[in-house]
Amino acid sequence: METSSFESSDARRHARPLKNAREVTFDDPLALDRGGVLREVTVAYETYGRLNRRRDNAILVCHALSGDSHVARHDQQDDPGWWDLMVGPGKAIDTDRYFVISPNLLGGCRGTTGPNRIDPETGRPYGPDFPVITVGDIAEVQRRLVDHLGVERLLAVVGGSLGGHLALWWATHLPERVAGAVVVASSARLTSQALAFDVVGRNAILRDPQYQAGPYYEQGPGPQVGLAIARMLGHITYLSGEAMTEKFDADRLSPREIRTEFETRFSVGSYLAHQGDRFVERFDANSYLTLTMALDLFDLGPTPEALAAALSGSRCKWLVISFTSDWLFPPFQSREIVDGLIRAGKPVTYCNVPSRCGHDAFLLPDDLDRYGELVGLFLANLHSHEPKTVDWFARPGACCSTGSDGPTSIFSHPHRLDYESILDLIPAGAGVLDLGCGRGGLLAELRSRGHSRLVGVELDVEAILTCACRGLDVVHADLNQGLSAFGDGQFDVVVLSQTLQTVTDVPRVVSEMLRVGRRGIVSFPNLGFWKHRDELAERGVAPRVDPGEGRQWYNTPYLRFLSIADFEAFCRAHGYRVHERIALDTEAGRRIDDDPNRNADLAIVVLGK
Amino acid sequence: METSSFESSDARRHARPLKNAREVTFDDPLALDRGGVLREVTVAYETYGRLNRRRDNAILVCHALSGDSHVARHDQQDDPGWWDLMVGPGKAIDTDRYFVISPNLLGGCRGTTGPNRIDPETGRPYGPDFPVITVGDIAEVQRRLVDHLGVERLLAVVGGSLGGHLALWWATHLPERVAGAVVVASSARLTSQALAFDVVGRNAILRDPQYQAGPYYEQGPGPQVGLAIARMLGHITYLSGEAMTEKFDADRLSPREIRTEFETRFSVGSYLAHQGDRFVERFDANSYLTLTMALDLFDLGPTPEALAAALSGSRCKWLVISFTSDWLFPPFQSREIVDGLIRAGKPVTYCNVPSRCGHDAFLLPDDLDRYGELVGLFLANLHSHEPKTVDWFARPGACCSTGSDGPTSIFSHPHRLDYESILDLIPAGAGVLDLGCGRGGLLAELRSRGHSRLVGVELDVEAILTCACRGLDVVHADLNQGLSAFGDGQFDVVVLSQTLQTVTDVPRVVSEMLRVGRRGIVSFPNLGFWKHRDELAERGVAPRVDPGEGRQWYNTPYLRFLSIADFEAFCRAHGYRVHERIALDTEAGRRIDDDPNRNADLAIVVLGK
Repeated sequence: METSSFESSDARRHARPLKNAREVTFDDPLALDRGGVLREVTVAYETYGRLNRRRDNAILVCHALSGDSHVARHDQQDDPGWWDLMVGPGKAIDTDRYFVISPNLLGGCRGTTGPNRIDPETGRPYGPDFPVITVGDIAEVQRRLVDHLGVERLLAVVGGSLGGHLALWWATHLPERVAGAVVVASSARLTSQALAFDVVGRNAILRDPQYQAGPYYEQGPGPQVGLAIARMLGHITYLSGEAMTEKFDADRLSPREIRTEFETRFSVGSYLAHQGDRFVERFDANSYLTLTMALDLFDLGPTPEALAAALSGSRCKWLVISFTSDWLFPPFQSREIVDGLIRAGKPVTYCNVPSRCGHDAFLLPDDLDRYGELVGLFLANLHSHEPKTVDWFARPGACCSTGSDGPTSIFSHPHRLDYESILDLIPAGAGVLDLGCGRGGLLAELRSRGHSRLVGVELDVEAILTCACRGLDVVHADLNQGLSAFGDGQFDVVVLSQTLQTVTDVPRVVSEMLRVGRRGIVSFPNLGFWKHRDELAERGVAPRVDPGEGRQWYNTPYLRFLSIADFEAFCRAHGYRVHERIALDTEAGRRIDDDPNRNADLAIVVLGK
Repeated sequence: METSSFESSDARRHARPLKNAREVTFDDPLALDRGGVLREVTVAYETYGRLNRRRDNAILVCHALSGDSHVARHDQQDDPGWWDLMVGPGKAIDTDRYFVISPNLLGGCRGTTGPNRIDPETGRPYGPDFPVITVGDIAEVQRRLVDHLGVERLLAVVGGSLGGHLALWWATHLPERVAGAVVVASSARLTSQALAFDVVGRNAILRDPQYQAGPYYEQGPGPQVGLAIARMLGHITYLSGEAMTEKFDADRLSPREIRTEFETRFSVGSYLAHQGDRFVERFDANSYLTLTMALDLFDLGPTPEALAAALSGSRCKWLVISFTSDWLFPPFQSREIVDGLIRAGKPVTYCNVPSRCGHDAFLLPDDLDRYGELVGLFLANLHSHEPKTVDWFARPGACCSTGSDGPTSIFSHPHRLDYESILDLIPAGAGVLDLGCGRGGLLAELRSRGHSRLVGVELDVEAILTCACRGLDVVHADLNQGLSAFGDGQFDVVVLSQTLQTVTDVPRVVSEMLRVGRRGIVSFPNLGFWKHRDELAERGVAPRVDPGEGRQWYNTPYLRFLSIADFEAFCRAHGYRVHERIALDTEAGRRIDDDPNRNADLAIVVLGK
């Protein structure tokens, strides 16, 4: 056999750290979650940027299943890293500002202790004797490295997929060590479907006769077919259905010409064969078995209650990002994390980024202007310590620099006059949930008045970006689907400002706001305003309740039309108490006390149960 | 080796027809689509019920990838069939009324000519030398069987998944032989994602060392691991993500105790291992390779134009059914077929059945009350020759027997008085598309007046069932998403009766109706009606335009509110011509000529470009 020399085998080659990686060995035995001990642990890692004097600018970047320590180029001549898009000078994870730590994971095959490294007990590679490890074990090794580098508290732990699991683990199990957690395309645990794909992949490796029960490093090429099959399968799950259609549908019968022993009848077949063959060259099957098992065993809490309990120990700020077309870690799983954080009363911003790229979206440029921007803004706000005073408008490309809705312009808009009145209705220091918070004008003003517990809910992604830019916590959600994440009475005040008229399920939204908050503040345009009455009565046309320019009855986002009288009847019928009511003539810029249902164009109602 | 005896091997066992199957051999050589000839072809098949004297009650049922001729029990003592739910006395495919023909497919392994049958040229099983076959080749063998059974024209060809491909093939390539085509959970061709899964499954088989390049029947157990891996993978794709969550999430770490050499750490793992092991006992790997390749090569047309051209040759009625959670043959693919049929002007009913069961839904009882009912009604209407006179109300469990919207009750409802006026506006014999057709009252009346080209579009599944019951063609679609399937000027008249007020994208819907039809007829409630003016002007409350009982401004399905004046202004602004306008006072039951925008509660407008 040509590869009979142990020293020259692929596995040994993998076992060496990558060219820019440093290596550190920790002699303390590592007791593992699922039993067993590793006598010593070596970590291969790369760093970028410099740790500042306060030692508060360190970011731990965690790779996913098949990644390694080489997250980005160290210079222009360097090989590409797996997240060059995100990590580098001036990028979202800005190496001019932050000190980036990127270790190869425990159980990996690129330098860190794993199945292809030498077991000091035997002098031979661990192979199939490498123990079952968990995400917690992997994080513990990362912790040793972070200690070694002299970092007491990380500015953030950032990761996608399995890397997201690590960020979750750090934030919940080492809460004092993390200021921010960035969880991208991840979950509290795998879906049964994702787990099933892993099972099939592992079976393909384990039942490959070349696996030889694992110690194949010394005896042959290893389970190359099984590993390639597992990788092909993985690749299908990393892409969205629509991405595959775009890539392969037009020329499905025209495979690329490649040398492979796998089927290449279809274009997608040649792609998968290529991916499988390439992966076998760079990855170790035992690492694949080890890391997929760690992924599959990860479970931060199987129920909403358990998950909220697990998250309740965290003390960091959270950014959670999912991608609409990701079906391996579907958006609802990110929502479960977000719901748990909300339940536990933790600060979180969440965005379900519209994407056609599937799970791989976080590694691709297509949606970088959304997810990269979110990460960059979140980290910058974390690092600035005073988010509200950061001059975001000066940052090139920052979302806040576009759009007219600055902190001042909001209040100059006549139809948002209700903000001032709403602000007056909110008791000092109250915790406020703003449903349909838009670009966060109300929340930003409340923050400047000293309120600390502030959360927004918004459907529009660009508005969410602006909120993130302002350092506000905002959750991407559709109000029509309820507020199940929020606990009873979690807020002093829930605001529904100029949003009621755009939701279809009014009874549900109002019921939910009064479950979640002790008081609800609702503002809405008054259909009973004399001008609207005249429009219909005199001119026989639909009242122009929507002040939006050029918007008519047939294209307004307003779907519900009500007068103050209607809303009060609704409240009586549903047993809600009206504590206070303010009626405004926004054009005249004054409060209305005389016959408000006729003389006001806008109403603000404070509700309770 | 214990299974060295050729006669006793699994493969030989499979090659025998099932116990109730008959066998017929056709000596004519079969020239195959992709080259090559099969010198003779044997078909194993089962039949149910009796062919009637007119020979017009025969239904060909086509199995999917892993099915066989045993579609249903022949009696209570018989083994279960794969579609017992659907086929039997009194069931949707009623063996008391129809003569059901169920052959094992060419390339299969249960009696019909396939890789495990003896090649007459060599006296040994075909094995890997079995030629590449297509859906067309499989259908050609079915045709020979149908001829042999003395059936000139099939009442219907029915099939799900690969079976749906066969129904598509029959209807398009043997149009004179088919009165109805029922295509369930199928597509015009596989998605690239589905194709990719097949590629991985085949690679697992082909690269299993036990495959031995195919002629394993005589030399060993065959590629059992590869076939099991392929089957595990298949099973993941047959279930929806939500179905897997329901099945496996609660006890994911508690596998069932089974004897297997596959991984069984997780509950889903033991399930997959069980499915893989069981499949290997009953299926032949070469048949798996052969039939998945036929599936993957099927392509009725890669573009909408090509697909419509392929479908344009059909002369049958069509029923197309998809399932909302099917991600292997996603609903959009059924819509592509439906769109092609519409483009080609063919009669089709389509329903996207709400389901949690994924691709397997058509084999499971969960949604039988929808898909089974649709198939049963479609076949019964086909068979009756006079669908409109069938007394559906007498059929136990038929959808028409519930609901108040019978053909007479519709016209007695005061707020559907517009039907009569609309009927008067439609020229005799005109082709009519009814957008938001509800339970089909208008279409049924038009049919009774002799109109033949009638199509409905509806969003509500129960309403679609009623339409199917009445033998009306109705397509399940959301008007807000446009009418792209319909060609320019395909109908004389497009009706939008009492639906405009429920769509959000009014400009698009009206524009589309005037693209598809030469005339549009729109009826809508008039906000300008004096009572509505009074409600707002005098009482200061939102007009009760929606006559629905108990429905208020906050829970009405009405989302757009307009007067006759508004609609006419809209038409002017968009360059539409108003050819005729009828205004009604539906309560008084009379037409209004004097100041209709004030005196009418309902308007009917005939539009053109």
